[in-house]
Amino acid sequence: MENQGILRIGIVGSGNVATHLAKAISLSKHQLTQVLSRNLERAKILTNNTDSEAIDKPSMLNPKLDILIFALKDDVLHSDFISQFPKDLILCHTSGSVSMEAFINFPNHGIFYPLQTFSKQKEVDFKEIPICLEANNQAVLHKLHSLASSLSNHVYEINSQQRKALHLAAVFACNFTNLMYDISEKLSQESGLDFEILRPLIKETAAKVQDHLPTEVQTGPAARNDNNIIEEHLKLLSNHRNYKEIYQILTNVIKTNNEEL
Amino acid sequence: MENQGILRIGIVGSGNVATHLAKAISLSKHQLTQVLSRNLERAKILTNNTDSEAIDKPSMLNPKLDILIFALKDDVLHSDFISQFPKDLILCHTSGSVSMEAFINFPNHGIFYPLQTFSKQKEVDFKEIPICLEANNQAVLHKLHSLASSLSNHVYEINSQQRKALHLAAVFACNFTNLMYDISEKLSQESGLDFEILRPLIKETAAKVQDHLPTEVQTGPAARNDNNIIEEHLKLLSNHRNYKEIYQILTNVIKTNNEEL
Repeated sequence: MENQGILRIGIVGSGNVATHLAKAISLSKHQLTQVLSRNLERAKILTNNTDSEAIDKPSMLNPKLDILIFALKDDVLHSDFISQFPKDLILCHTSGSVSMEAFINFPNHGIFYPLQTFSKQKEVDFKEIPICLEANNQAVLHKLHSLASSLSNHVYEINSQQRKALHLAAVFACNFTNLMYDISEKLSQESGLDFEILRPLIKETAAKVQDHLPTEVQTGPAARNDNNIIEEHLKLLSNHRNYKEIYQILTNVIKTNNEEL
Repeated sequence: MENQGILRIGIVGSGNVATHLAKAISLSKHQLTQVLSRNLERAKILTNNTDSEAIDKPSMLNPKLDILIFALKDDVLHSDFISQFPKDLILCHTSGSVSMEAFINFPNHGIFYPLQTFSKQKEVDFKEIPICLEANNQAVLHKLHSLASSLSNHVYEINSQQRKALHLAAVFACNFTNLMYDISEKLSQESGLDFEILRPLIKETAAKVQDHLPTEVQTGPAARNDNNIIEEHLKLLSNHRNYKEIYQILTNVIKTNNEEL
C-alpha cells in the first residue's frame, strides 16, 4: 500500500541548492528517494544519513519518482542532458532565469525556484525561504505545492515573466548589495580600519527593511541633500574612478526619488 | 563623597541618536544628568523615567558635568551655537563627518561616533554598536573610553581621517545598500510581486558577510560572467535608464574584481 500524500522526490545535482534542498526534503514528510550526479561521490555526500540512493546515470532513476528536481547550473538545463530523462516523470528546475520551456518535450513539468543565496558551509532555515512555483498543468502545480509547503512557510505561484523580474530584482537585493559591502570593506581597509566596524551597520540596514519599505528608511547625505558632504566624499574618491562614478549615479537616483516623494 | 568612576553625562539634542544614547546611558553605570534641547518638550521625552533633568538653555547646564555630548545635525555643529557653552567642560559630538576642530576653542574635546543607522521607532542593542572615539588629549580619551565601554562591547580609537573614510564606507554599506533594496522593491512591484518575497534574501545577504569578507561570497550573473543573463536583464531594464546604467557599471566592477582575484 502506498503512503498517503507522501511524494518520492529525486534531485539532479550536487551543488549548493541541491545540498540544502536534499537536506530539507529528507527532514520533511516527503521522501528523498534518489540523488543523481555525474560525480557519484558528491551525490553520496547528499544521501549520507538519509534513506535515499546516490546514482550517476539517468537510466538508474526509480520509475516511481513523483517529482524530479533539476538543481543545476543554467547552461546544463539548456543542453541535450535533459533529453535523456524518462518522459513520464514530472520534471522541474530551480533556476530563476531559465524558462519553463526547457522541459517543453515533457508532458508534465514546472518550476521550483527557492529565492535565496546558498553556500554549502552555512546552514539556512528552509522554512523561511520563499519558494516560487510554476507548472504546465494543475496536477503538477498541486504536487509541487504539496512538496514546497512541507519545506517552507512561504510558497508563491508566479509566472515566468514574474520570475524573470524577480531574478533581476534579486541581483540588486543580493549581488549588487554585496558589491556595496565589498566597496565599503575596501574603503575602510585603505584607511587601516577593520571591516568588523561596519558589520553591525550592515546587519541593521537589512533588519530595517524587514518591516519597512526601503524608500521609508532611506538616510544619508543624498537623502538629506547635504551637498557639502557629497562634495567631500567625491574628493575622497578621486583616486577611485569607478567608485566615484557609482557614488555619483546612486546619489542622483536617491535625490530624484526624494523629489518625487 | 563622589561616586568612584561614575561620570555625569549631558546630551545636547533630542533626535534619533540623542534618544538612543540617552536610553543607553541611563541604563549604564554612568549617570545621565541633563538633556538639553531648544524644544523642552522633546528633551522631556528623553529624560522621562530617568533621574535626569530636561533643560532648554546652555546657561542651565550643571557645572559638574563630566562630558557633554552633542548629538545634533552637522550644520548646527558648525554654527555659533557651540560658542555659548562653558569652556571648562569636555565637549564631544557624534558626527561621522564633522571635524574635531569644531571644538577648537575648548581645551578638552573629542568625538563619540556611534556607527549605526538609528530610527526612533526601532530598538537597538547598544552593546553591539561600534563606538569610534577621538580626543585632543589622553585625559579626555580616557573619560570617553570609560563611557563608551560601559555602553558597547565594540570601542575603537580612530583619527579624523579614518572617521571620514569610515563615514564614506558607511554610505556604501548602508545608504547605497538601501537604494539597492529600493530598486529591487520597485522592480518586483512592477511585476505584481510582493516585496515580502525578497526580504529573506536581503537578510541572508547581510548575514553572510558577518563572518566572511564580501569578496569571498560574491554571487550572481556578473560573478559567473554569465553574459546571456546580463543581456536579458539589460533588456528588461530598457525602460529604466537609471537602473540600466547602475546595472551596467556595477556588473563591470564585479567582473573586474573577479579578473583581479
